[in-house]
Amino acid sequence: MVSGQKAGPVLVKGIGDDCATIISRSKRQLLTVDAFVEGVHFNRRWTSARDAGWKALVANLSDIAAAGGRPRVALISLELPPSMEISWLKGFYSGLLACARRYGVAVAGGNISRSTHFASHITLTGDAPKSIVGRSGARSGDVLAVTGSLGGSLAGLMCLKKGIKGGAVSSAIARHNRPVPRLKDGRMLAGVAHALIDISDGLVHEAGLLADASGVRMVMDAGMFPVHPAAKALAKTRLRICQEELAGTSGEEYELLAAVPRNKTAWALKRGMKVVGLVAKGKGVLVTGLRKKSPTGFNHFR
Amino acid sequence: MVSGQKAGPVLVKGIGDDCATIISRSKRQLLTVDAFVEGVHFNRRWTSARDAGWKALVANLSDIAAAGGRPRVALISLELPPSMEISWLKGFYSGLLACARRYGVAVAGGNISRSTHFASHITLTGDAPKSIVGRSGARSGDVLAVTGSLGGSLAGLMCLKKGIKGGAVSSAIARHNRPVPRLKDGRMLAGVAHALIDISDGLVHEAGLLADASGVRMVMDAGMFPVHPAAKALAKTRLRICQEELAGTSGEEYELLAAVPRNKTAWALKRGMKVVGLVAKGKGVLVTGLRKKSPTGFNHFR
Repeated sequence: MVSGQKAGPVLVKGIGDDCATIISRSKRQLLTVDAFVEGVHFNRRWTSARDAGWKALVANLSDIAAAGGRPRVALISLELPPSMEISWLKGFYSGLLACARRYGVAVAGGNISRSTHFASHITLTGDAPKSIVGRSGARSGDVLAVTGSLGGSLAGLMCLKKGIKGGAVSSAIARHNRPVPRLKDGRMLAGVAHALIDISDGLVHEAGLLADASGVRMVMDAGMFPVHPAAKALAKTRLRICQEELAGTSGEEYELLAAVPRNKTAWALKRGMKVVGLVAKGKGVLVTGLRKKSPTGFNHFR
Repeated sequence: MVSGQKAGPVLVKGIGDDCATIISRSKRQLLTVDAFVEGVHFNRRWTSARDAGWKALVANLSDIAAAGGRPRVALISLELPPSMEISWLKGFYSGLLACARRYGVAVAGGNISRSTHFASHITLTGDAPKSIVGRSGARSGDVLAVTGSLGGSLAGLMCLKKGIKGGAVSSAIARHNRPVPRLKDGRMLAGVAHALIDISDGLVHEAGLLADASGVRMVMDAGMFPVHPAAKALAKTRLRICQEELAGTSGEEYELLAAVPRNKTAWALKRGMKVVGLVAKGKGVLVTGLRKKSPTGFNHFR
């Protein structure tokens, strides 16, 4: 018998049986799964075992945040290569469990398989909010707003790849390797926003997904993108990239992008969100305010 | 909006959002995950795309069966190599969906990741039975009983590997490539058995897991193993292995092994189960009735 955290589901039976048995607080549950594959989602040269474990679970937590939910129970399915060092695996688990404790998640078990590489596939359950918010509810006239600031994760990754050090670098790297899911903001937005998504693949890309799912056009202005202080400090001088491009394309930010009704703009601003654009009739994404063509294909989104 | 099958959970929102939202019939839910990795769990030379998809889901269904539950919602997390043929992937999905339909499972979405090989990690939810049966409840004096017959899956795999054809071969191969989860038997046994497990890694191995989890000794007699007709027909003449060894070591059988109270022996026999041994005090597994030392390490279990 294993007990879950307070107010969470009680894990009646868990690790060691064919199934975990959980008792949830509601019959309406969220379910999400994310893969975290070595060489695709992370690289051991740049991300420590502990950070990899933390990041693997945050990807799932952020999906629960984008649904406005409360995370509950995780199942971990691992692929392990024969060459895997036990110390690395222990580090991965310790980072994952630290993240689970921090956000009230009970790890209920999972599966281990032999493989040619390391991969984790984490399934996370969550309590669903009363009103379910998805990607398809954005309406012409809504305002596009984001939590936090953007660009730090990509700036950190670029510094890691290029071996750049000092100054704002450690802040950017922390942003890349220790992301924070926006669970409280997600629950706050669930009753208000018309559409909600987390920024795992870059702001402009996610805006495109909302546009496609909602049948609308997103008009964004790069000058309005909230740029992370470290991204601002590093962009031009050390990374040779414009800060708006960093903010618009940086993945693994795990901030939230919401389409909120226009009369809720003040409400969103008061809660620290920044307006980055508007929802219009049409389709696709238009980004204005970029000064020059981008070397990374950022302008392809226009 | 996607509707689930009758009497199942309603899938309120599914594919295309960050999370699936499901409404279950009870707050007590089962959760299980299984990996299905190419080169580890299957080989494309011996298993068609459709059969691979079917088998991938059956591994999960069998876990729900061993918990005495009713399967509900699946999430599919795939790793796809760049060389993956679309036709193979379509075949995999069509086999998986055929299996989902057959057993009343709603596929609620999932995740796709780039990788160096094909792998699926399937999470399955299920309604939990009133009394939860696991691996740790077997008691000295119980009777060990199995559903169905064993050895067919391994016999089929051996025929596929060695290119043996004709006679009982097709029946053995069907047993290997189109296994059937024992969901009804699992629900029937949930209220009666002291311990329950599915035979995914071989009867003797699973008996060892029950013994370890329950702190008891399993005494089995190889002469009592119910041997699948095709395994019986192929064992000596064409596979050069004794039929008891096939039955005792064959994995991916997905039959159920139960420790039932002695006074329920007639009840189990009436329902088609076969007695294979007894639960005694002590630890480990003793298999009697084997005529000679086994070349495949079967006797290591003694």
